Amino acid sequence: MIIDIHGHVVAPPELYAYQASLLASRGAHGRGKVNVSDEKLMNAVWGSRQGEKKTHIELLNEVGTDMQFVSPRPFHAMHSAKPEKIVHWYTEEANNLIARVCKLFPNRFLGIAGLPQNAEVSPKNAIPEMERCIKELGFVGVMLNPDPNEGVGTPPPGLGDEYWYPIYEKAVELDVPILIHSASCQSHRESYSLHFINEETIAVISLLNSKVFEVFPTLKIVISHAGGAVPYQIGRFMAGRYRTGAEPFEESIRKLYFDTCLYTKDSLELLFKTVGVDRCMFGTENPGTGSAINPNTGMYMDNTKPVIESIEWLSETDKKMIFSETAIKVYNLKRS
Amino acid sequence: MIIDIHGHVVAPPELYAYQASLLASRGAHGRGKVNVSDEKLMNAVWGSRQGEKKTHIELLNEVGTDMQFVSPRPFHAMHSAKPEKIVHWYTEEANNLIARVCKLFPNRFLGIAGLPQNAEVSPKNAIPEMERCIKELGFVGVMLNPDPNEGVGTPPPGLGDEYWYPIYEKAVELDVPILIHSASCQSHRESYSLHFINEETIAVISLLNSKVFEVFPTLKIVISHAGGAVPYQIGRFMAGRYRTGAEPFEESIRKLYFDTCLYTKDSLELLFKTVGVDRCMFGTENPGTGSAINPNTGMYMDNTKPVIESIEWLSETDKKMIFSETAIKVYNLKRS
Amino acid sequence: MIIDIHGHVVAPPELYAYQASLLASRGAHGRGKVNVSDEKLMNAVWGSRQGEKKTHIELLNEVGTDMQFVSPRPFHAMHSAKPEKIVHWYTEEANNLIARVCKLFPNRFLGIAGLPQNAEVSPKNAIPEMERCIKELGFVGVMLNPDPNEGVGTPPPGLGDEYWYPIYEKAVELDVPILIHSASCQSHRESYSLHFINEETIAVISLLNSKVFEVFPTLKIVISHAGGAVPYQIGRFMAGRYRTGAEPFEESIRKLYFDTCLYTKDSLELLFKTVGVDRCMFGTENPGTGSAINPNTGMYMDNTKPVIESIEWLSETDKKMIFSETAIKVYNLKRS
Amino acid sequence: MIIDIHGHVVAPPELYAYQASLLASRGAHGRGKVNVSDEKLMNAVWGSRQGEKKTHIELLNEVGTDMQFVSPRPFHAMHSAKPEKIVHWYTEEANNLIARVCKLFPNRFLGIAGLPQNAEVSPKNAIPEMERCIKELGFVGVMLNPDPNEGVGTPPPGLGDEYWYPIYEKAVELDVPILIHSASCQSHRESYSLHFINEETIAVISLLNSKVFEVFPTLKIVISHAGGAVPYQIGRFMAGRYRTGAEPFEESIRKLYFDTCLYTKDSLELLFKTVGVDRCMFGTENPGTGSAINPNTGMYMDNTKPVIESIEWLSETDKKMIFSETAIKVYNLKRS
Amino acid sequence: MIIDIHGHVVAPPELYAYQASLLASRGAHGRGKVNVSDEKLMNAVWGSRQGEKKTHIELLNEVGTDMQFVSPRPFHAMHSAKPEKIVHWYTEEANNLIARVCKLFPNRFLGIAGLPQNAEVSPKNAIPEMERCIKELGFVGVMLNPDPNEGVGTPPPGLGDEYWYPIYEKAVELDVPILIHSASCQSHRESYSLHFINEETIAVISLLNSKVFEVFPTLKIVISHAGGAVPYQIGRFMAGRYRTGAEPFEESIRKLYFDTCLYTKDSLELLFKTVGVDRCMFGTENPGTGSAINPNTGMYMDNTKPVIESIEWLSETDKKMIFSETAIKVYNLKRS
Amino acid sequence: MIIDIHGHVVAPPELYAYQASLLASRGAHGRGKVNVSDEKLMNAVWGSRQGEKKTHIELLNEVGTDMQFVSPRPFHAMHSAKPEKIVHWYTEEANNLIARVCKLFPNRFLGIAGLPQNAEVSPKNAIPEMERCIKELGFVGVMLNPDPNEGVGTPPPGLGDEYWYPIYEKAVELDVPILIHSASCQSHRESYSLHFINEETIAVISLLNSKVFEVFPTLKIVISHAGGAVPYQIGRFMAGRYRTGAEPFEESIRKLYFDTCLYTKDSLELLFKTVGVDRCMFGTENPGTGSAINPNTGMYMDNTKPVIESIEWLSETDKKMIFSETAIKVYNLKRS
Repeated sequence: MIIDIHGHVVAPPELYAYQASLLASRGAHGRGKVNVSDEKLMNAVWGSRQGEKKTHIELLNEVGTDMQFVSPRPFHAMHSAKPEKIVHWYTEEANNLIARVCKLFPNRFLGIAGLPQNAEVSPKNAIPEMERCIKELGFVGVMLNPDPNEGVGTPPPGLGDEYWYPIYEKAVELDVPILIHSASCQSHRESYSLHFINEETIAVISLLNSKVFEVFPTLKIVISHAGGAVPYQIGRFMAGRYRTGAEPFEESIRKLYFDTCLYTKDSLELLFKTVGVDRCMFGTENPGTGSAINPNTGMYMDNTKPVIESIEWLSETDKKMIFSETAIKVYNLKRS
Repeated sequence: MIIDIHGHVVAPPELYAYQASLLASRGAHGRGKVNVSDEKLMNAVWGSRQGEKKTHIELLNEVGTDMQFVSPRPFHAMHSAKPEKIVHWYTEEANNLIARVCKLFPNRFLGIAGLPQNAEVSPKNAIPEMERCIKELGFVGVMLNPDPNEGVGTPPPGLGDEYWYPIYEKAVELDVPILIHSASCQSHRESYSLHFINEETIAVISLLNSKVFEVFPTLKIVISHAGGAVPYQIGRFMAGRYRTGAEPFEESIRKLYFDTCLYTKDSLELLFKTVGVDRCMFGTENPGTGSAINPNTGMYMDNTKPVIESIEWLSETDKKMIFSETAIKVYNLKRS
Repeated sequence: MIIDIHGHVVAPPELYAYQASLLASRGAHGRGKVNVSDEKLMNAVWGSRQGEKKTHIELLNEVGTDMQFVSPRPFHAMHSAKPEKIVHWYTEEANNLIARVCKLFPNRFLGIAGLPQNAEVSPKNAIPEMERCIKELGFVGVMLNPDPNEGVGTPPPGLGDEYWYPIYEKAVELDVPILIHSASCQSHRESYSLHFINEETIAVISLLNSKVFEVFPTLKIVISHAGGAVPYQIGRFMAGRYRTGAEPFEESIRKLYFDTCLYTKDSLELLFKTVGVDRCMFGTENPGTGSAINPNTGMYMDNTKPVIESIEWLSETDKKMIFSETAIKVYNLKRS
Repeated sequence: MIIDIHGHVVAPPELYAYQASLLASRGAHGRGKVNVSDEKLMNAVWGSRQGEKKTHIELLNEVGTDMQFVSPRPFHAMHSAKPEKIVHWYTEEANNLIARVCKLFPNRFLGIAGLPQNAEVSPKNAIPEMERCIKELGFVGVMLNPDPNEGVGTPPPGLGDEYWYPIYEKAVELDVPILIHSASCQSHRESYSLHFINEETIAVISLLNSKVFEVFPTLKIVISHAGGAVPYQIGRFMAGRYRTGAEPFEESIRKLYFDTCLYTKDSLELLFKTVGVDRCMFGTENPGTGSAINPNTGMYMDNTKPVIESIEWLSETDKKMIFSETAIKVYNLKRS
Repeated sequence: MIIDIHGHVVAPPELYAYQASLLASRGAHGRGKVNVSDEKLMNAVWGSRQGEKKTHIELLNEVGTDMQFVSPRPFHAMHSAKPEKIVHWYTEEANNLIARVCKLFPNRFLGIAGLPQNAEVSPKNAIPEMERCIKELGFVGVMLNPDPNEGVGTPPPGLGDEYWYPIYEKAVELDVPILIHSASCQSHRESYSLHFINEETIAVISLLNSKVFEVFPTLKIVISHAGGAVPYQIGRFMAGRYRTGAEPFEESIRKLYFDTCLYTKDSLELLFKTVGVDRCMFGTENPGTGSAINPNTGMYMDNTKPVIESIEWLSETDKKMIFSETAIKVYNLKRS
Repeated sequence: MIIDIHGHVVAPPELYAYQASLLASRGAHGRGKVNVSDEKLMNAVWGSRQGEKKTHIELLNEVGTDMQFVSPRPFHAMHSAKPEKIVHWYTEEANNLIARVCKLFPNRFLGIAGLPQNAEVSPKNAIPEMERCIKELGFVGVMLNPDPNEGVGTPPPGLGDEYWYPIYEKAVELDVPILIHSASCQSHRESYSLHFINEETIAVISLLNSKVFEVFPTLKIVISHAGGAVPYQIGRFMAGRYRTGAEPFEESIRKLYFDTCLYTKDSLELLFKTVGVDRCMFGTENPGTGSAINPNTGMYMDNTKPVIESIEWLSETDKKMIFSETAIKVYNLKRS
């Protein structure tokens, strides 16, 4: 069984037209909602993505993915928009759409909740939607943005800070993992895609230099995009710990989970070796950044299943863990 | 013949999904474009608007409008968004869509160009698009936002200031009228709809207290929504002029044109009496704010054609001027 | 009997010299007070205004006004000045002067309290002076500025917000009406006079879209300058209510009172027709903006008594209501 | 003969009412002017000052002052007010009033021009008024404020910077001295009166550590209030120069002139000893801060003529220099 | 016996290298500490100062100083640096070094604690270090900076404000005097040395115009550098008090203590006469600003002992008070 | 031969005490200079580093490094400090010290110039020092900080922007490579060490998405710390290029050079495979972050020479290139 823990919903234009309208009116028209039929929704997932030839389902089929976890598109999260209420409205609608897609394709998708975080606003305000998604919509995890400022102004403290404890406390209570994934970026020198990487790097270090896992020993945190720069740059963090005699960094890093959202074999191997196979879960963001065909192989970059399978030193048990077993355990899935 | 000089295009969700995507990515995906078929476009204009029962064309038919001038939805103009390039991209796409709609319904619509204005940026940057729309797309006028800051920060000087001369100069050169119409508003105490009214009030006073019409004697400026508060509050501006002996305000105001975008008979009468029938052109913003059925009459509020026709003291010539003649002259239309 | 509910005191230069001194010293000289004799004060009201030929009393006599309510000149309110204490000192002195003028001309003037509001400061701080003016100085109402920021920075929420409830609560307790009237404006594109109009427009909409009159059913609010743009632009607000099925706007607007501070017959007629004769009270701001002679009539613009009297469709009862009866009721005046 | 080089005009309340009106309207009423008769003006100078028993002339008579140089009240200079034009208008009116007072009392007063400086604006903008006062109004000097920001925001560079050269160049060309005197202060921890002292301290050090007197060898600069803290704290500046071997500070300081605006004998002696008798000119700011009666002597503090006369070690020649000779030379007065 | 109450420690470069490292790393390396041997420390005090020929001890010997109170170099206090923790770390290390120096030279130095004040942060945060220095390190006083903003942004209220009461309360409880001494200055027009003077001037006036000494009658405050400008400019403050009839300023000023940190005889005489000999304590800041040889005398400027001794009108008792007796009393020293 | 291209000078505390003094005085004491004898300097390099047992030379000997390129410690660069001049002074002194060290150890060290960059200031201002170091001091390269804002405010554009062309132009003219290396970081969520990684990631992407190498085809740019996250995350950048058909990213990346400043074998292998052995130069930052002993190996983390030597698939030629040949070519070294 193949579970892809990192996917984002392919929504019809009506969702984003709804978002554009909220941003344009600053909420003056009231909450409204996304008017889209099941047929249109189904079509968006089976229909062709803008500028891509294959549909979401076809792409998953091509990989052989049985089940994908889907959350709202992060770069659309509009976490820095004001007033705060429009962020809540949009996030709720995005989550609702995901819930409908999951219902339409019950054996194909499970929901990861987008959180209505807002710049300069306590993450506490996101908790009601967090609960709604898990308890009412049946989602299996949540996605947390370490920088709701989206690259401007003074960002909130790093994820190791008590500022974020309300989210951790609720995640522990609901027993769901948190996927760390930043959103858009308004800086003139970082695209949102680069911001993902840099924010993940900061997130890993902030968490591992904090008391978060002492305070919340059962907290499950998954770092997107294979941990940003940290597995590659791990030596400098190891040295710091050796110097002070604290817990070796190469052990600390194993408190986190990582997706395998890298698109090259060498990097995947580095990831597995560095953090351990048992801390990695198959994740592709497919369709997404990696959905381009490598002209040398004729395959989509984000079809990393054969890539992982081709790593000789991984045992069958390793691969099973990566492709499904760890996800089943971490996300409390019932074994089908 | 009935010409409605103040309409905004009814676009398919793909336009706004495009906009949402630009806002989300801050342009990191490149310019892209709106992918929408002629069929879908046609459907958007004939198809039902979200939450409204009648289509754009049906609504115009109900009024008896032969020709409507359409511009991008102002509250979607995103003039305060950054980086500037995404405002240009969106505005161009919105204008392109209008051009396609005009071509699909050649006897029904004429284009008014949205301008890619941007907060803290000279209006000069909007001139290439202004030229493209008039010269290449065949539009008959442009729409100017006096507050590209959209209600936050320090707005640019009033429209009477030399800051705006490049736009006036180009409008005179192209011989097209400028429709004054603000866009969205991010203030927490003014909706964009209120901002329209207040900005128009400021615009009229700024223009009439300036040298703009001395410097550009052939400039044609049309104030949306019947001039904001000014016709109603005209007494206080008249008094100011009487005190100093300057040109009477009741004469100055006749340098401007006004649409009739009011939805009550008393107000329309006040407008005609105050600025003169010959300075008014039929305009409804239909479908838009006024597209709600008055339960007392069973008619759409923005169907003001019968309202104007019912004003007894207006002569047939007056009505002709209002409904078409003045627009034909001001917008240089060929008489069909 | 003719009651003019909207007048501002004609003060001797000593009041404004006192203000200038506070602004210059930022209060370093202590509170001090306005030193001016009764004779000088009397002379200011009977003496010639700067640049005008007639005295305040003469102007009222010319109109035939028996009683005028006077408050401090709004554009002098200095609400955005710092430190806060100098605003309190000035406002108290201005109110004191009004109290003295009312005592000197007991059958001619009644006081409306200026409130010592200050930018970025809770309106609560104005309550002690509000009480002093009503309880100790015998004033019959208060004047509230919806924008103590005076056009710069981030203004406080609209008048519908709970932010303002302390003022409403106290007004209800004291059973006095609140005249909504903004003060100066530091924006480079709005004069204070334009700001009046725009702020009144915002005030009306904010109040009528809020729960203020549910929470304070006996609250009496009077909008200056005949409601800004709202009576003229009423159609767009009616449409919004028809669309949602909420209370019709044309009914909601009748929760407010309006002065008749317009200077043209057509506009006055529109006001009466739109909000109802029973919600209008004669008000002229005389002497003030309208105190200029219309060369076509040879009369002061703000002498609107004959204008109102010339409206044929108003009954005698209507006129009585406008000229005195409603004010007597609303302001709890004893019938002389 | 007694010449007091540091006085400020005693103006009637109309000047400050004019100022208050400009500040209140932000110039919306246009320039206007101060309407005050010669009689009233005369009365202001002979009439009693607010809260003081003696008139300006009586106070000068009491001292025995034959001639006083008068400038606008510095704390009223409103240099940080916006828009800039109201500062120009007020300053011009204040200077005009001084010109009228000088004409009314031709043997008693000579004018020192207030400059219309404005925060964040080049001092160049003050030059036309500087020229007008000297060339047209017959003034004998100008007063320069080193901090037109009035204690908030980022002040301009110190007086030693090239930023100020246009003023120095014009002063040299017109051959008039510059009196350094700051204006109001909006800081919450410095009154304007303290700000005077601190700004003078900064001014002296900035000038003496600069190349100003190399570039403008004939420039005449007079420091108000006896140089702030510098004569008292001179040791620390002397030490700095001894350390580097630069020109001794006790010599450098003699490039400046100082008024004697101190109110105690010990301090006056320190001043004379420190900067040299020949660099000091009698100045009292009378009436002003020092116009209070010392209960121990029964005399006004600012009547420092007998105090200076009582300094035994000063020769008659010294005293003559202080009381008149130096001023006659520095200000190019004709010997009467 | 000669006690110099105003000295700053001569530290080895390791202290400042430590500081530079904290500023550079923003604390990322953790607290660390200054690694310097007793030998090096001893050498710094006996060894030659950078660019000066004589050592600290030699300079004191030259003066004849028996005991000096030493605090951290104020201009190095880094009070405006962020994050706050690095200011605490540096201050603690600086105080630790002082404690070590005092121990190495037990009959020569006593410690005055630097306080870890920080811009925009309550002075309360400095209290633990204040207690540590007095109770554990045996220091005899503390040094308070009235402007931890170091000349930028909005400084805290003046020292008369309740904002500072926690420090006063603790000083009273610990029975130690507070030396008022500002730190660095980031303004582009004031060096830190000028800022000292201006801040002391503000401090004296703020304290004497407040209720501080009513609330804390046993509080002992010492003003550095002989009170800034106040003793010299005392007349203007006396006049203000005479005008209102409040406590004469010349009495109020005697609630404070002053050091004699002036370097010229005339100024020292003015100080003694103005505030009274009994409020003055010998202080030189040696080595420091005044450590330059006056070429006219061949003596160090800050060797003011012979200068004071040469003042003929001072009695032997006066001199004793200045040189030791008052300090012994104020600082609770045991008479050796 | 072993050349280490990435080292930073081990300076005596006097350099940092000098820096602390500049930061404290804001330059008020003038430029001054670092007073340190050759003996002390020599000792700093041979003497024990603070908290480390081995000296710089010993550590290099242990590795077997023949020649190291040394630049100022980046986290000490103080690029965001004001006024700008103190940054220039410090940088010059740091470079001077390096020049002296290089002279003292002529066969061991070659200089890389620190540049006096300053926040909000054009990089042009660094060019004179760049020239001085290369032409007069004999340095072989320069170090460029892409974020002189040090993590606060609005950073300059990415390195691909024309903003940086003056530096590139000069580097081409002088024919020296530029080492990209950020400095300190004042953000509360990124240590300077994390900032290095994130800034390098941004730098690589900005450069490779720009026209820099078209405009400057001979420009040589070396990315510190093995390229931040890019080699590990290369897949997402490859996909982006495949999608648009632009030059494959895996080719573009080979326009840059990289040091080998990683401390783990897996990461080093990834680097070599990803960017090509011929683009990598041995670099360790020794002593620095990596100078901690790995308890599992008993070796210093930054002694990566044996690690690289142990990579079996590297040929002898490969290793030669990495250890010296490429550096000799890129830095124009004479073969000794």
